Amino acid sequence: MTQSTELPPALPEGGLRVVALGGIGEIGRNMTVFEHAGRLLVVDCGVLFPEDDQPGVDLILPDFRAIEDRLDDIDAIVLTHGHEDHIGAVPFLLKLRPDVPVVGSRFTLALLAAKCKEHRQNPRLVEVKEGERRSYGPFELEFFAVNHSIPDALAVAIRTAAGLVLHTGDIKLDQLPLDGRLTDLAGFSRLGDEGVDLFLVDSTNAEVPGFVVPEREIGPVLENVIRKADQRVIVACFASHVHRVQQVLDVAVQYKRKVAFVGRSMVRNMGIASELGFLKVPDGLFVDLDVAMRMDENEVLFVSTGSQGEPLSALSRMARGEHRQISIREGDTVILASSLIPGNENAVFNVVNGLAKLGATVVHQGNAKVHVSGHSPAGELLFLYNAVRPSNVMPVHGEWRHLRANAALAVATGVAEDHVVIAEDGVVVDLIDGKAAVSGRVVVGHVYVDGLSVGDVGESTLSDRLVLGEGGFISISVAIDTATGRPVTAPTISGRGFSDDPKALDQVVPLVEMELARTEAEGITDTHRVAQAVRRVVGRWVAETYRRRPMIVPTVIPV
Amino acid sequence: MTQSTELPPALPEGGLRVVALGGIGEIGRNMTVFEHAGRLLVVDCGVLFPEDDQPGVDLILPDFRAIEDRLDDIDAIVLTHGHEDHIGAVPFLLKLRPDVPVVGSRFTLALLAAKCKEHRQNPRLVEVKEGERRSYGPFELEFFAVNHSIPDALAVAIRTAAGLVLHTGDIKLDQLPLDGRLTDLAGFSRLGDEGVDLFLVDSTNAEVPGFVVPEREIGPVLENVIRKADQRVIVACFASHVHRVQQVLDVAVQYKRKVAFVGRSMVRNMGIASELGFLKVPDGLFVDLDVAMRMDENEVLFVSTGSQGEPLSALSRMARGEHRQISIREGDTVILASSLIPGNENAVFNVVNGLAKLGATVVHQGNAKVHVSGHSPAGELLFLYNAVRPSNVMPVHGEWRHLRANAALAVATGVAEDHVVIAEDGVVVDLIDGKAAVSGRVVVGHVYVDGLSVGDVGESTLSDRLVLGEGGFISISVAIDTATGRPVTAPTISGRGFSDDPKALDQVVPLVEMELARTEAEGITDTHRVAQAVRRVVGRWVAETYRRRPMIVPTVIPV
Repeated sequence: MTQSTELPPALPEGGLRVVALGGIGEIGRNMTVFEHAGRLLVVDCGVLFPEDDQPGVDLILPDFRAIEDRLDDIDAIVLTHGHEDHIGAVPFLLKLRPDVPVVGSRFTLALLAAKCKEHRQNPRLVEVKEGERRSYGPFELEFFAVNHSIPDALAVAIRTAAGLVLHTGDIKLDQLPLDGRLTDLAGFSRLGDEGVDLFLVDSTNAEVPGFVVPEREIGPVLENVIRKADQRVIVACFASHVHRVQQVLDVAVQYKRKVAFVGRSMVRNMGIASELGFLKVPDGLFVDLDVAMRMDENEVLFVSTGSQGEPLSALSRMARGEHRQISIREGDTVILASSLIPGNENAVFNVVNGLAKLGATVVHQGNAKVHVSGHSPAGELLFLYNAVRPSNVMPVHGEWRHLRANAALAVATGVAEDHVVIAEDGVVVDLIDGKAAVSGRVVVGHVYVDGLSVGDVGESTLSDRLVLGEGGFISISVAIDTATGRPVTAPTISGRGFSDDPKALDQVVPLVEMELARTEAEGITDTHRVAQAVRRVVGRWVAETYRRRPMIVPTVIPV
Repeated sequence: MTQSTELPPALPEGGLRVVALGGIGEIGRNMTVFEHAGRLLVVDCGVLFPEDDQPGVDLILPDFRAIEDRLDDIDAIVLTHGHEDHIGAVPFLLKLRPDVPVVGSRFTLALLAAKCKEHRQNPRLVEVKEGERRSYGPFELEFFAVNHSIPDALAVAIRTAAGLVLHTGDIKLDQLPLDGRLTDLAGFSRLGDEGVDLFLVDSTNAEVPGFVVPEREIGPVLENVIRKADQRVIVACFASHVHRVQQVLDVAVQYKRKVAFVGRSMVRNMGIASELGFLKVPDGLFVDLDVAMRMDENEVLFVSTGSQGEPLSALSRMARGEHRQISIREGDTVILASSLIPGNENAVFNVVNGLAKLGATVVHQGNAKVHVSGHSPAGELLFLYNAVRPSNVMPVHGEWRHLRANAALAVATGVAEDHVVIAEDGVVVDLIDGKAAVSGRVVVGHVYVDGLSVGDVGESTLSDRLVLGEGGFISISVAIDTATGRPVTAPTISGRGFSDDPKALDQVVPLVEMELARTEAEGITDTHRVAQAVRRVVGRWVAETYRRRPMIVPTVIPV
């Protein structure tokens, strides 16, 4: 588990190199690059959603710099499943290399195609199924069915002259999956017999003991809630969780309610899922929102986005009483059939409290079993290790606490401790002669998307935003005669985000005037030096008077 | 459960009025004001910690406006226990009325005294114990022992001519408390026999089914972890959780480790607790941090603050490798024996990940039973309702989801639905002839403390901070001749928190020059109108070019 800060040496012939450009040491923007015989294979290319210390950012992309000079060496992009943290950055990579084949399952590619359409891209999509094999350059791929919180997920085995690698993608071992499509543990065992040289394993729930409850146990909980409802019912969940929605639809049918979808991504994804047969829908079940609004309240059920408390989502608007069509009334029922992603708690509970205040009965993960995770906890990971019996293990898809816990599980099943490699983003792992080890490190930073542009918002901008967000700013503008240093105007002071009190900055003008008199008397005519002097006195004054640290922004205009 | 927006009528003679100036509809800044026969009684006076949409704020106080004209009518402030959300705002109330008696238990008052000393106040403290009775004006008080996550907590019964009120404070029913001091359920039953007219009940865990695990079950879990440690052990928990710390000390004694406290509030509070006998400490157990640093790593144990991931705390510094004295090494053990307060998850997990990356074994609520809550879940609340058998119920200490859940529990035990009053902050409840009902509403807003001043930061400042924190600002300064409207300088453009790209705003200067030429040509000489025009063109340009919304700050200086 050593860390290196050195660039790796050239990869020896016959070796396999693995480097994550995102997704290890964090949950999100998964992207792993495999290199063999001078060629590259990319597995997943997703986005990460920003945290509090990355304000104003829309998305975070994997850092492509390590491969930007080698784009032509990429033989394929393999997608394990259709979640945003696995496919969301594909359009940004395709912008650099539009003709690379994108390989994935039917549902995964359908979601990607919809996304690429929005980017006006027409990628080369190659549909594969579990059990199939494909070769791209020196990489022989074999796909395995995997159960997760989205249909049609795949694990991928990668055979090269360097050995056999198995990448789980996102995985769990629900033994009673709604679609009957089990994680192919038998296939993994067969690979284990053949000998897996390197096993990349989902770490998300490695800290959680035990096993996941089957998805299908949520159905009866939903049924129990919806049965009692005699008014409006609104169910919020992830827009890609087809099996969760399927169970909601089944209950709706049972209680003779029509279903209307609310939220753009929900409408789009469920359209795709039902068109491709992943969602089984009786004829006439769906109604448009406008039609639903004219029906009796106990004859309709709404399936909505907004389960993470996103402030602009339909559900948040309902909770604030601002939704254009749906106003919540005392006695309505709202179900948040979703996880609570760390960091979203306040937003989600704001929504729950808003709905509760309006009188709705709100059912959520905190008071009912309306969610199960999509990732294997520790008990299931042990099954995976014992099926695969890998020589080397590399925990992926996790923060450090998850990676450490997953590594400990691998060791507990008999993997040698020095064959378990924790390699966060950018750490280069080489598989040579059957042994995986860290060989160096490439630079992987955060690549921010903010509005229309990628990469121009960086750490300096974010650090300014954090200062401004905490304390606002005080700006002081003055024009000076650059021959004499004499102010030709009175200083103009304004503060934003500093105080509601209109007199809060009244003392600043005389303070600045005094300082300008001093700089003039000392013969300082350089606008930059005058600005520095102004910043210093105002900064000191505000620290002493208010014990606050707004940004001080002096502008000295030369006349 | 009706809501009113009207000011209440005068309180009829013989009636009792109850209004929360904080703490209902939120968790924090608890403060309830009782009025009878023209006199006032205040129960608790705490602070609330700000959320993401209140950036830069240090504390939020209860809103005293409803009583600011009646400060002389206050007969006493009663404190139920020593947590910040119950005592933190007392110094701010004492500033307005320094001579009011402050009534509480020994430990509560000791913590308050330390706080008041920092504010250079010397309040009139009146120590009481469970079982005691005191009268202040028309309010006859009786105190009851209550079990909570801090020692020496009290419930208070308030007798007036209007009837008998019982306020639980923060409460749980641990049946095997570490100090043997049970919540006085027998006393509550006796009050129930007498007839409780209004019952104010802690709602925090009303959504959670079942019962709390006894605090003492944490000891063996700690023992199990610390027994295996052969290097450094650091335990982080709340600085007021004396019984949690007691169990850590007990294990330290067992494994022959000395104990050093880290963090100012931990040192202070545990000093008070051991001095008053709430913490039982063998002679010679405590060592100073400097001494501890010179001892062998397996002979010392650190008890630290920082369990909520506070970025400046000792534990966060250790996780970032920036602590002046303690550097975490592979194989060290860190235990976060604390809750995960919603909203703090990212901060806490950042600390856990930092420690895990450095190689520490990190034990926390997510992977071991190292925390129990201090508030009664639903099962225990039912016991309370059945003991007290109140005529009227008012859920307190909770967000709307908790209040609703608590109200449902009251109804389930037989309280008439129209005798359960959900009254968020500011809603006035009158108890008249044995029936509690909403009679109106007073204004209760957020009162922010930011640095040295109270109240000057308000919603407008916070809304500016949110805009600046998301998008930064672009400032444009120019001096114009107010006779002609002609610019006498080139426009000076600068952006902060907008872009790392130094050329990002290059197009703005010509754009502004063009606009200034237009305003001049149209004969616009008013600096305000010129500024508006500049804001408009720059705002439009940035929205079209970047699809972002920085604050646009034009300054037009008249020359």
